[in-house]
Amino acid sequence: MLKITPSVMERVPADTLGGAQAAATALGTIHGVGLGPGAQDLLSVRADRLVRGTRHVAYFRKAGRAGRARRIVEGMLRDDVVEFAMEYPVTTEIPFSDPRYNALLAEFYAACIERLHAIARSGEDVVVLCEGDPFFYGSFMHLYARLQGVVPVRVVPGITGMSGAWTVSGTPITWGDDMLTVLMATLPEEDLARRIRDTDALAVMKVGRNLPKLRRAVAAAGREDEAWLVEYATMPEERVTRLRDASDATPYFSILLIHGQGRRP
Amino acid sequence: MLKITPSVMERVPADTLGGAQAAATALGTIHGVGLGPGAQDLLSVRADRLVRGTRHVAYFRKAGRAGRARRIVEGMLRDDVVEFAMEYPVTTEIPFSDPRYNALLAEFYAACIERLHAIARSGEDVVVLCEGDPFFYGSFMHLYARLQGVVPVRVVPGITGMSGAWTVSGTPITWGDDMLTVLMATLPEEDLARRIRDTDALAVMKVGRNLPKLRRAVAAAGREDEAWLVEYATMPEERVTRLRDASDATPYFSILLIHGQGRRP
Repeated sequence: MLKITPSVMERVPADTLGGAQAAATALGTIHGVGLGPGAQDLLSVRADRLVRGTRHVAYFRKAGRAGRARRIVEGMLRDDVVEFAMEYPVTTEIPFSDPRYNALLAEFYAACIERLHAIARSGEDVVVLCEGDPFFYGSFMHLYARLQGVVPVRVVPGITGMSGAWTVSGTPITWGDDMLTVLMATLPEEDLARRIRDTDALAVMKVGRNLPKLRRAVAAAGREDEAWLVEYATMPEERVTRLRDASDATPYFSILLIHGQGRRP
Repeated sequence: MLKITPSVMERVPADTLGGAQAAATALGTIHGVGLGPGAQDLLSVRADRLVRGTRHVAYFRKAGRAGRARRIVEGMLRDDVVEFAMEYPVTTEIPFSDPRYNALLAEFYAACIERLHAIARSGEDVVVLCEGDPFFYGSFMHLYARLQGVVPVRVVPGITGMSGAWTVSGTPITWGDDMLTVLMATLPEEDLARRIRDTDALAVMKVGRNLPKLRRAVAAAGREDEAWLVEYATMPEERVTRLRDASDATPYFSILLIHGQGRRP
């Protein structure tokens, strides 16, 4: 599934300059680049430059899919770009609690960084495409933790998917002293209900097939009338629906929102 | 303090085209534009285009200050730009709980929208500069709520200050199923302590002179060793300090972080 191309490994140059500093200078940089919520002109100017200029691009995707991050940059890449699709060996087929899940993913990330590291050792930079913001629930963090201190790694923050969602909802998310709680819909129903009851504003991510459970948790918290579901924020298929009017079929990346009602002079 | 220029009011054109649709076409648009955390190349491509192209720019600032939003776009504005500095009549001189606080601010926002509305009626657009993301604890929301349905208003999301802070902290903020709590340091100490105890990851904003209180709340929650203070993230004066090493003098816009420790294959 994940192919480590031997030719890339072989391109690692011998340290002809000698000395630690010279060797460090020769290393390429791995950029974890936040792409924002989906619209191409919501990339930052810095991200836009990096994406358009890079020779090597890497991105996560589910096997058999185009990949959401890759889709965002469609039409922006160099003609001679070298693409590295990092295909998850598992997404929802095995529960997180199964030890095989961690083992498979650890092996997968090790293979990814082996290839990224090889590109960096060849003196070239790589841009790793990240939906939203790389340090906010992103898979890039698993690469970052393994590459930090080994090769130069730089991170470009991005507009989060939740910012995209509340912007297209047409209503501000937090006012004055409102508190905001961000939850994953993968949490147990009781935890969700308790947290949803005890916050001013709310954003729930990774909704997808957790929607029926999330809907019950929102109802248990007595907040059904305040909840909105946002799908594909800032993208052509964008849709904003009251939770009570939403069908149970919603994409993984949809976001549930409850807007704060804080101080308003 | 806030000057409503009569000449702007007088430029409102008569509805010579007649009919509701023609009149609507003639109205300018008010853009609430998120600028991100501070670095100029962290504006989105959409925000960058709007800021560089606009004839009318408006921004909030404290009287006697340059204004943080205005500072971010230094050097980007057109030579013939018309600037409208919206100077708060009060910031921290009167407590929020004092009824005069709300009355003064309501009067201030009414005067702001009167001028913005006049520019829109003259057929020209205005860009309102917003630090971070406009719908996330921003003053622009108070204009938005008053202008919605009156003139065309569009909002461009931005990279939040907290994304800037956790990016420069060099450590991801949330992993796996971590929950993130966002709090304002203006909250009572007991509320802060309870919330800080009961979350995986944390971002606290509006720190400034609330730092001694916030420090006590973090200690009461037993999380002093995990807390970091980030000042001026992504700007030249950027500083990341462990909370226990930070002095009590910190800017209003500094952000306290506790990083999540969630699932990591």
